[in-house]
Amino acid sequence: MDCCLGETPLKPIEKSPLARKLSSFVALSTNELEVLHHLHRRRRSFVAGRDLVQQGQSEQAAYILSEGWVCSYKLQPDGSRQIIDFQIPGDFLGLRSVLLRTSDHSFEPVTDIQAAEVPSDDLLAAFAQTTRLATAILWAASRDEAMVVEHLVNLGRRDADVRMAHFLLELGSRLALVGMGSQTGYDCPLTQYHLADALGLSAVHVNRVLRQLRENGLVTFRNGKVIFDDRDRLVKIAEFDPEYLDQTGPLLT
Amino acid sequence: MDCCLGETPLKPIEKSPLARKLSSFVALSTNELEVLHHLHRRRRSFVAGRDLVQQGQSEQAAYILSEGWVCSYKLQPDGSRQIIDFQIPGDFLGLRSVLLRTSDHSFEPVTDIQAAEVPSDDLLAAFAQTTRLATAILWAASRDEAMVVEHLVNLGRRDADVRMAHFLLELGSRLALVGMGSQTGYDCPLTQYHLADALGLSAVHVNRVLRQLRENGLVTFRNGKVIFDDRDRLVKIAEFDPEYLDQTGPLLT
Repeated sequence: MDCCLGETPLKPIEKSPLARKLSSFVALSTNELEVLHHLHRRRRSFVAGRDLVQQGQSEQAAYILSEGWVCSYKLQPDGSRQIIDFQIPGDFLGLRSVLLRTSDHSFEPVTDIQAAEVPSDDLLAAFAQTTRLATAILWAASRDEAMVVEHLVNLGRRDADVRMAHFLLELGSRLALVGMGSQTGYDCPLTQYHLADALGLSAVHVNRVLRQLRENGLVTFRNGKVIFDDRDRLVKIAEFDPEYLDQTGPLLT
Repeated sequence: MDCCLGETPLKPIEKSPLARKLSSFVALSTNELEVLHHLHRRRRSFVAGRDLVQQGQSEQAAYILSEGWVCSYKLQPDGSRQIIDFQIPGDFLGLRSVLLRTSDHSFEPVTDIQAAEVPSDDLLAAFAQTTRLATAILWAASRDEAMVVEHLVNLGRRDADVRMAHFLLELGSRLALVGMGSQTGYDCPLTQYHLADALGLSAVHVNRVLRQLRENGLVTFRNGKVIFDDRDRLVKIAEFDPEYLDQTGPLLT
């Protein structure tokens, strides 16, 4: 423990969102949970709206997000922004950048956040200590990529309403995995600008699509809450098949 | 060696495209090269146009592509296809699906191909044997994801001509890494339909964009060859920054 002065104590390891998430892939042993716990020791706080990691920045650490929401994005030379994904508790930020030499995109906290800083040496040491944990983290990275692939299909091949429905359902499933939502809905701090930059729509278009989904009795996103008014019908309309999220219980026992 | 009867012998390990690619990240030891070589032992041939792995298929192996080109794609319920990426020699096919329980997309050989089948147990065993190789493979997976992120930005934020220019430059850099192209150009078996499905354009639009790039003296794609007529200017127009491909030499020595 070479940091953490004056910071809030760690939660019990079995309850960290990352441990919870990885446990859906690998049944982690006490030793593996301890290695994972140890990776959480450099706790940091960041305020909303200020980049954690900037595109092109090199030699930064990865972070494990424990509280709050973050978005990852790429800025284009013309100033437009493409949001790649949102990160929620239990997600890594910049895991890829630890292995690639420079970050290929930026991370901005959507809310105030708590995250543990993980220098690349610590991560590689943890991998060497326990292959099962390394495999679980590779699983998480693979799952992150499967989500980016879905977002690619979203942009390339889905209409605005289907795109939005798919996006809200995906977030709901991800949040449920770390205990932050249910089949009925979830708290969501995103603005229409976040949704627009993620879904390749204008903010006006986002408003119109959300109104339409609400008026059709499918889903309501208002006052920081997403409520599934008719989840079954929404799943059908969105052709949402959560298989790519791979949340059906430990594969490695 | 429990397979390979009647198949072509393996090339010397130091020359396999995957070894070549991974060596740009990790300086692999003889032992690590041998573990990697061993992963190549189940050689398979597949003909062009017939899916290797289908979306939703479970318990399949991963493959290491050694010869030929493949595309990975998702079919939408309306029959439209979004190509996620193309795989070239040295790339894994379905690495993610070994860890996720079902494949979240399909793989179709663009040409006849040679690939080594890697059952998930073999891969996990190799990871347990050598952490550095596991790290190198995680690097390759991270790099694949960085490419998908670029494709997301391509679809969400770039005009058709910039999109095409970026795509052709990316392929060129990837091929050069495994010794299959140069600064002046490369052989390319893709059709206008592949380009259309990858770039979210119609085949007619692809034709028009390619003609425009050619007439502007930037790049010529004809008769299965991409020739960079003025690569520097093309890089500028595409705002192509190859940093996300992370090809600048071993990080782990």
